[in-house]
Amino acid sequence: MNTFGQLFKLTTWGESHGKAIGGVIDGCPSGIELDLTSINKDLQRRRPGQSSITSPRNEEDTFEILSGILNGKTTGHPISFMIHNSNKKSADYNNIQDTFRPSHADYTYTAKYGIHDQNGGGRSSARETANWVLAGSIAKQVLAKKNIDIFAFVKSIGTIKLHQNHESIDASQIETNITRCPDADTAAQMELYIKELMNDGNTCGGSIQCVIKGLPVGLGEPIFDKFNARLAQAMMTINAARAFELGEGVQLSSLTGKEANDSYIYTDQKIQTSTNHSAGIQGGITNGMPIWFQVYFKPVSSIKKPQKTINQEHQEVTIEINGRHDPCVVPRAVPIVEALAYLVCLDFMLLNQSYLMHD
Amino acid sequence: MNTFGQLFKLTTWGESHGKAIGGVIDGCPSGIELDLTSINKDLQRRRPGQSSITSPRNEEDTFEILSGILNGKTTGHPISFMIHNSNKKSADYNNIQDTFRPSHADYTYTAKYGIHDQNGGGRSSARETANWVLAGSIAKQVLAKKNIDIFAFVKSIGTIKLHQNHESIDASQIETNITRCPDADTAAQMELYIKELMNDGNTCGGSIQCVIKGLPVGLGEPIFDKFNARLAQAMMTINAARAFELGEGVQLSSLTGKEANDSYIYTDQKIQTSTNHSAGIQGGITNGMPIWFQVYFKPVSSIKKPQKTINQEHQEVTIEINGRHDPCVVPRAVPIVEALAYLVCLDFMLLNQSYLMHD
Amino acid sequence: MNTFGQLFKLTTWGESHGKAIGGVIDGCPSGIELDLTSINKDLQRRRPGQSSITSPRNEEDTFEILSGILNGKTTGHPISFMIHNSNKKSADYNNIQDTFRPSHADYTYTAKYGIHDQNGGGRSSARETANWVLAGSIAKQVLAKKNIDIFAFVKSIGTIKLHQNHESIDASQIETNITRCPDADTAAQMELYIKELMNDGNTCGGSIQCVIKGLPVGLGEPIFDKFNARLAQAMMTINAARAFELGEGVQLSSLTGKEANDSYIYTDQKIQTSTNHSAGIQGGITNGMPIWFQVYFKPVSSIKKPQKTINQEHQEVTIEINGRHDPCVVPRAVPIVEALAYLVCLDFMLLNQSYLMHD
Amino acid sequence: MNTFGQLFKLTTWGESHGKAIGGVIDGCPSGIELDLTSINKDLQRRRPGQSSITSPRNEEDTFEILSGILNGKTTGHPISFMIHNSNKKSADYNNIQDTFRPSHADYTYTAKYGIHDQNGGGRSSARETANWVLAGSIAKQVLAKKNIDIFAFVKSIGTIKLHQNHESIDASQIETNITRCPDADTAAQMELYIKELMNDGNTCGGSIQCVIKGLPVGLGEPIFDKFNARLAQAMMTINAARAFELGEGVQLSSLTGKEANDSYIYTDQKIQTSTNHSAGIQGGITNGMPIWFQVYFKPVSSIKKPQKTINQEHQEVTIEINGRHDPCVVPRAVPIVEALAYLVCLDFMLLNQSYLMHD
Repeated sequence: MNTFGQLFKLTTWGESHGKAIGGVIDGCPSGIELDLTSINKDLQRRRPGQSSITSPRNEEDTFEILSGILNGKTTGHPISFMIHNSNKKSADYNNIQDTFRPSHADYTYTAKYGIHDQNGGGRSSARETANWVLAGSIAKQVLAKKNIDIFAFVKSIGTIKLHQNHESIDASQIETNITRCPDADTAAQMELYIKELMNDGNTCGGSIQCVIKGLPVGLGEPIFDKFNARLAQAMMTINAARAFELGEGVQLSSLTGKEANDSYIYTDQKIQTSTNHSAGIQGGITNGMPIWFQVYFKPVSSIKKPQKTINQEHQEVTIEINGRHDPCVVPRAVPIVEALAYLVCLDFMLLNQSYLMHD
Repeated sequence: MNTFGQLFKLTTWGESHGKAIGGVIDGCPSGIELDLTSINKDLQRRRPGQSSITSPRNEEDTFEILSGILNGKTTGHPISFMIHNSNKKSADYNNIQDTFRPSHADYTYTAKYGIHDQNGGGRSSARETANWVLAGSIAKQVLAKKNIDIFAFVKSIGTIKLHQNHESIDASQIETNITRCPDADTAAQMELYIKELMNDGNTCGGSIQCVIKGLPVGLGEPIFDKFNARLAQAMMTINAARAFELGEGVQLSSLTGKEANDSYIYTDQKIQTSTNHSAGIQGGITNGMPIWFQVYFKPVSSIKKPQKTINQEHQEVTIEINGRHDPCVVPRAVPIVEALAYLVCLDFMLLNQSYLMHD
Repeated sequence: MNTFGQLFKLTTWGESHGKAIGGVIDGCPSGIELDLTSINKDLQRRRPGQSSITSPRNEEDTFEILSGILNGKTTGHPISFMIHNSNKKSADYNNIQDTFRPSHADYTYTAKYGIHDQNGGGRSSARETANWVLAGSIAKQVLAKKNIDIFAFVKSIGTIKLHQNHESIDASQIETNITRCPDADTAAQMELYIKELMNDGNTCGGSIQCVIKGLPVGLGEPIFDKFNARLAQAMMTINAARAFELGEGVQLSSLTGKEANDSYIYTDQKIQTSTNHSAGIQGGITNGMPIWFQVYFKPVSSIKKPQKTINQEHQEVTIEINGRHDPCVVPRAVPIVEALAYLVCLDFMLLNQSYLMHD
Repeated sequence: MNTFGQLFKLTTWGESHGKAIGGVIDGCPSGIELDLTSINKDLQRRRPGQSSITSPRNEEDTFEILSGILNGKTTGHPISFMIHNSNKKSADYNNIQDTFRPSHADYTYTAKYGIHDQNGGGRSSARETANWVLAGSIAKQVLAKKNIDIFAFVKSIGTIKLHQNHESIDASQIETNITRCPDADTAAQMELYIKELMNDGNTCGGSIQCVIKGLPVGLGEPIFDKFNARLAQAMMTINAARAFELGEGVQLSSLTGKEANDSYIYTDQKIQTSTNHSAGIQGGITNGMPIWFQVYFKPVSSIKKPQKTINQEHQEVTIEINGRHDPCVVPRAVPIVEALAYLVCLDFMLLNQSYLMHD
């Protein structure tokens, strides 16, 4: 359903081509100063039309906070927000009104809900992710004094991969180019590749790496709410996400225990591990070391090429999709991954402190 | 926390070296005939000591159902079950009592709960997964008349991989060997590899593939309870799981839209797709095609080699772990993956039907 | 927190003197035709300024539905609604800005959230109940074809009581007078009593009786979600509610078993009971007979008389409350009680059908 | 369903005539020393056969804790407990096997779950309340250092009422007699009344008052989890409970605002109210003053007199119930009310502290 989180709860609503989308945050601690400019900045990183490799839809993503704030501070009551849908060009969808687009959610949504809402995908549109970015931006501000640092970047686009360890990433380079890959050369190749596909009416996928530093030891609630399990759920919620990999993940499965174990050491007056194959999580609980993970995205399904499919009457048809779609969603998904990571971290912070009993 | 599911809810309890472990299933439909022999069979597939490549702990996993059943049928009331801990050899842990084992949950559990329960890992032990297998076996029986078919098998052990597409797998071969890899040659290699590591006191990881066939169209509850998101959460809950990959997952991220799209066709009097890159899920909702996914496991951390670590007083120590541990958990994790898949499927079946309004 | 219901879930937000209040309904079945005029009619029954015995605040309660509806029908996706706050006269509160009004939530809200939001009570204001009425009106429409009939009426105002059994009530008389008491004589006395208190700057409480007819057998989810337990929770949520009484409740506690037992009979081709002391519920589950219950409300705390209290600096002060408050909320609470009853009924309908397994 | 609480969660299971009943507590803070003798003492106050006015069933209520405790302290992991059913005399039920007992849950349970489990009421039996008493006893111990004091007592039995204000009650007198009414004279009358009914094969109801002292300001989570709303839900869960009344409740509804308002005063270095008509709760949040409430119970439905009813084939029959039932459950319900009050208080304590953000 449409609520995420157990104590810091986000409930979202809205279709891509309705009046607006929005959400309600329940469980936000009171007395937190909210900087709306900072929220806006986060939203701009996600919005379409931000660069030459994104959808030309120029949604400004202006938002309004309708409750839960008094004199610039959170009140502890639900924060209702709304992001206006300024640019609803439903006419794009006229010619495909009653067809099931290949690899789209049209068919499954129609089958499940009995309603065929082709207006830009309705509720299944990635427009929804603007809600997550806004909520994640609030979560980030709640956590502001905790010295938690989360950053994500593009790790691969199609077959082009960034060959750099997450520890050597200079996070300040991420926003210096439109692909959000922190290495200038790789970024240039990625951009070129995306533009070639664009010109061809084709699309591609890719992957994102995200790093979380500064989390306290003890976050995560075994058995079923392990930190990694909730992180996986969150990331697999992103449209087009097809795999979640904690740390070295897939590669780790081919190593031996001797190679993969992390020894504990006591250094800088705290318990750490000499290596970090565990990616900061043991037994589903954070151990204070950096966490990192990858999310893999399939290519955008809206390609500008003739495709065979069927319509609602089960007849074979050939369609061409002409909506203003991204050739690759991965650069725009970077702030989405960060936002969801903040939501997960804050929720676990609140859960963890709820069980402490002081005399 | 310790409950999984929204309508078919499993709450588990128990430490590896206490009297017993167990669970309570709430929300099981009434009137379902339960075959206890079948539950027992599923438990035996998971239990340690089942073969020459598993832990020599010989837990028989005898279980008892304490409530929720009358005359062999479910009553609609909570089903409480208990699995006895017959073989608690805590002495194994004496020499490591106050140390933090490398890549184990000792440290994070101690830090979070303030209690150092070294008796076999306490709650963090994989013994807990017996509860899941038992509950999954019940879920399977509830779904018995729905023609849903779920099977999992070992896809890789260390660097040895099964090169076979899930569509060509002969599921009847899975249980013919102790590695649970359906190809005899690959299975033999895997077995050899595990035994070599065993003799060396070393361990390894691997991966499992799982196939779900026969699910109706419409399961999954966007936005935050997409079928794939809940499946990922479930699988990442398994001890040592480090990555979840739906269908072609990682590889899909390097393809183009033209290559990866699945066209709808109408055949055999139902809507299908000509290819199945989507792995049976679109927009987080099942489309009626087969679902398949991979779970990747890190190597077992309990190796029988001297390892450096620290104790609770932060002093550097060298330990050797002599408990009866598996050299590789992957073959035994096959029924665990299946069980969790059944739990996810049944929960979504119940959720899906709750929203239907008939006149 | 701010969500009610388990499958038909209402999450609300908004302060009495902000831009708007509103809510999100998650879990509404799809394909239900929504009549907005009918929603509006329900809202008008609750709104202040509706008669000479209510607050002179003239809130029009215009609402907007922002999502979840397509071509007049529910889509199965979250229904976001917003009710504008047209008449925010915060100046009324200037003179009491830093005091704790007697028997108000000012103090507890300030203590809990660390923020003193005196603007009309902020989140604790009864303005919130407009959200419930709107959501309840939608629930009523979802249930429209189920022949469920819910009506509430004023049973007492101060010391004036309606001496009439719920079975003999003519529901069509409820809206014929401004007190919502279905007996004209008693209604006239009540109106007179309220007006006298109004002139004196005083206020009063009272009680409401609600009748639910036509519910199927089997609603309610023991042990902890018994029909009566959730109904009690819902009703005690209403501002100023101080007691919940199922059927003969208090009086039943002084009878003997012989007097109070209801015998089963088979009549009109269904199982019924000869008497209905059980008020339609046995073991927390509906038995198909009519349900009725009472909710008791304390007097409005905002009286226009000098009252002693303290301010935030703990100094004793005398205040006079001049906001536009109701002398008695009970007549306006009638549609609120009905709305919450609809929410409870629909949620249990969905829960009940989720557990049915058909072959 | 069968879980109560949001952070301190109790999930229960078990039928009255099965092997055992029990429960799992999830979310119990770690490091709490548990005194099992004290739990046992609480259980003995609830058990049948404890006096000459209770059921002659002599259940000893021996319990076992199966997990979540190490060296006498809670570990932060689920506490699984089990209470054995020693005295299952199902033969009592032979003659009524296929009938629907008047005012019992037989019919509604059969209709809902499709299964007629007459063995002592199955899951609907009050035996379940032993689980609550055990869990409440643990909650009490978790709260031990918080100086919270909860006591309940019998306020009325049938038509015999205790005319004494809760403030003047000497709690040490409650356990001095078998009716649990703290006034010796009234207690004697009550005992006599119950015995007369017993001899006549008849039964009666009554009411309990409960007082909660020492709660901090700020407990309760508006809008839908107000302290009083959750308390009402909890109390209405008790078998035979028919009304919940906070403080002066029903009587308060006939007063005027001038009579019922509580003025704030600053005394003993804290904010208090001069009177306590609010019963310690304002806006659904505790204000630090004592809370008190009443629960009203209908008479026991199992009377030893011939009663007309129908059987499963819809035929009219006359039955006589000969099971060993209480003539009045109210004295035994006293520890049940207390236990549920502890569960509610602890859950709100944990919720309240989860939202605090310290720098």
